[in-house]
Amino acid sequence: MKLVQIKTATVPLQSDISNAWVNFREMTGTVVAVVSDVRRHGYPVIGWGFGSIGRYSSTAIVRGRIAPRLLACPPSAYLDADGRLDPMRAWPIMLQNEKPGGHGERSTAVGAVDMALWDLAAKLEDVPLWKLLSDRFNQGRADTTIAVYAAGGYYHQAGGQSALQDEIKGYREAGYTDVKIKIGGATLAEDLKRVECAAQVMGGMKHVAVDANGRLDATAAHAYATALGELGVRWFEEPGDPLDFAMQAELSASHPALAFATGENLFSHQDVRNLCRHAGLNSKRDTLQMDPALSYGLPEYLRMLDLLATHGWSRRRCVPHGGHQFSLHLAAGLQLGGNESYPGVFKPFGGFADDTIFETGLVRLPDAPGIGIELQRELSACFRGLLG
Amino acid sequence: MKLVQIKTATVPLQSDISNAWVNFREMTGTVVAVVSDVRRHGYPVIGWGFGSIGRYSSTAIVRGRIAPRLLACPPSAYLDADGRLDPMRAWPIMLQNEKPGGHGERSTAVGAVDMALWDLAAKLEDVPLWKLLSDRFNQGRADTTIAVYAAGGYYHQAGGQSALQDEIKGYREAGYTDVKIKIGGATLAEDLKRVECAAQVMGGMKHVAVDANGRLDATAAHAYATALGELGVRWFEEPGDPLDFAMQAELSASHPALAFATGENLFSHQDVRNLCRHAGLNSKRDTLQMDPALSYGLPEYLRMLDLLATHGWSRRRCVPHGGHQFSLHLAAGLQLGGNESYPGVFKPFGGFADDTIFETGLVRLPDAPGIGIELQRELSACFRGLLG
Repeated sequence: MKLVQIKTATVPLQSDISNAWVNFREMTGTVVAVVSDVRRHGYPVIGWGFGSIGRYSSTAIVRGRIAPRLLACPPSAYLDADGRLDPMRAWPIMLQNEKPGGHGERSTAVGAVDMALWDLAAKLEDVPLWKLLSDRFNQGRADTTIAVYAAGGYYHQAGGQSALQDEIKGYREAGYTDVKIKIGGATLAEDLKRVECAAQVMGGMKHVAVDANGRLDATAAHAYATALGELGVRWFEEPGDPLDFAMQAELSASHPALAFATGENLFSHQDVRNLCRHAGLNSKRDTLQMDPALSYGLPEYLRMLDLLATHGWSRRRCVPHGGHQFSLHLAAGLQLGGNESYPGVFKPFGGFADDTIFETGLVRLPDAPGIGIELQRELSACFRGLLG
Repeated sequence: MKLVQIKTATVPLQSDISNAWVNFREMTGTVVAVVSDVRRHGYPVIGWGFGSIGRYSSTAIVRGRIAPRLLACPPSAYLDADGRLDPMRAWPIMLQNEKPGGHGERSTAVGAVDMALWDLAAKLEDVPLWKLLSDRFNQGRADTTIAVYAAGGYYHQAGGQSALQDEIKGYREAGYTDVKIKIGGATLAEDLKRVECAAQVMGGMKHVAVDANGRLDATAAHAYATALGELGVRWFEEPGDPLDFAMQAELSASHPALAFATGENLFSHQDVRNLCRHAGLNSKRDTLQMDPALSYGLPEYLRMLDLLATHGWSRRRCVPHGGHQFSLHLAAGLQLGGNESYPGVFKPFGGFADDTIFETGLVRLPDAPGIGIELQRELSACFRGLLG
């Protein structure tokens, strides 16, 4: 088995929506195809990966640094003793001559290539990725259904409260039992009305999480936490800057009954270690949302899980950001706490296989070998374009 | 005044040297030219900037995100009330629709463009940059000479101890009073011989700092710290991972007589805030080396200085990484503690103006308007190539 070609391209995101911090109109993403020399049914076996959602394309880094390093080394460097592709061995090759610290952008580039390598490895074994992960990293245990929640409730350009109500109703009718909506982009009073609107549709505050996307300062965050604690929302996500661990620790101490969630903007195990050490989170109640496709891929995610365990966190407290199929496989094969879901937004990256079986907030993975990106029509079109 | 064009290119670094972590053979850098519509002597006034040294080129980010945002906005967005270019106002434009956290790569892209904007602003005012900074941010105070030390002592591919001795002798003969050498890429015993060799040439341990480039684990770092404390080196730089603040705090507590230095791999004020809060550094003795060209430019560096002040740090404890002319202007105009210097390595980015006046470890800045990159023949050739 040999890697013969790595192709990459930038794909625009099809979402003109805003959270408290950014508009996604000009957001892009990275697609990566790793071509092997193994042929089946007359075609090469190819792994597909992408750089999740919310950080701009890192194709230049894939093209200039990550891909050349992989293609320059002998296959023995990324094969196991039985001659099978081992993405765990490919990982240090991708990060040769990279300095420590500065964990952004290149973490997405490595995440996208790593995803393609796992897709390829599972296809070569002819198993769905969750099965490969379960056998290799979880003693053969796996979940057959994964709890997902609908992440939405963005600030619509028009329509206000009634547009929000329609959006949340759509999630409920599609079968979602839990939703997350954006806050922090309006006044506290207006945001609380948005939360109440969502809770009314979903049948209770415990079905509504809220996300400030790191926008609030300490004073505003305390005011929101007080109000949200009284309402009893499911969780309060990223109140302040994702690296302001001391502010989170103060919030957690001042609002002991309120659950918090964070982690989507921490892209290395070193950053997650600082979160564990300094942010005062509650390992029995809070939710961690690191996204492997934004943060150096699965090998780094496994490092995060290991260090979380040493700080008393169960994997069930991890619910990855990104609403993509790769994390869905991790959630199943490593038995995480669930996964985010973006019904209808962030196309072509958001969403799962087109015919995903979905019932009352639970998703089943398809049986196709690999990740199953081929079963997402719109996303797979990006890859077919890439391969020409 | 209007910005009419922003050009950028990737330039290879001309250094086949290694520290404990990386080899720089394939390292690249970013050059940026910001072209204004102001003409003098028949030519447009152009600001030049580059992304320091040690992180790969970020031209794709400049080209795809940073430059288009600046060129799309009306000039009023980056001009002050008197119609003069104000890089402080340009800064938030460059970071429109960028999410919080993930401070790497884009921080170098913004750093390079920001440097070009300051070069342009100073040229338009017809003053050297240090003078503009002094007037604007330091009540007109400035230093006329800046203390620099020779950063070298890399692991040579050949020659070993005698090559190191020759290298250090060269620095002494060039007029340097202080040097820094690499450790952590060999055994402790071998590294201590290297340190002793350097101290012998320089006339004492207090003239020799050492840099492990974040390579050591806690056990090794403690062993090195014990030995280096007994020797009495000038400082012990980046013993462990730059984000492992707790490890640094333990080291600092266990070795109260040893000075430490760090910061070159922290690219945001949020990361520096965590350093202040969690790393147990001694604000009366330790050295901070954040590099503005790697970390979102001067506006972010000023934020770092402000928060350092709230944690009891004087600006004199700041000695920027990178050995480039931009930080030299900051050191003079903001009265920092000095600057790094790379005699002979990391060309074309390393080094100051070709005819820099240099005496017993002190540098004087040229009087040319702007940064004076035009006075570095080899570096200015990169910009002339860029402008065609």
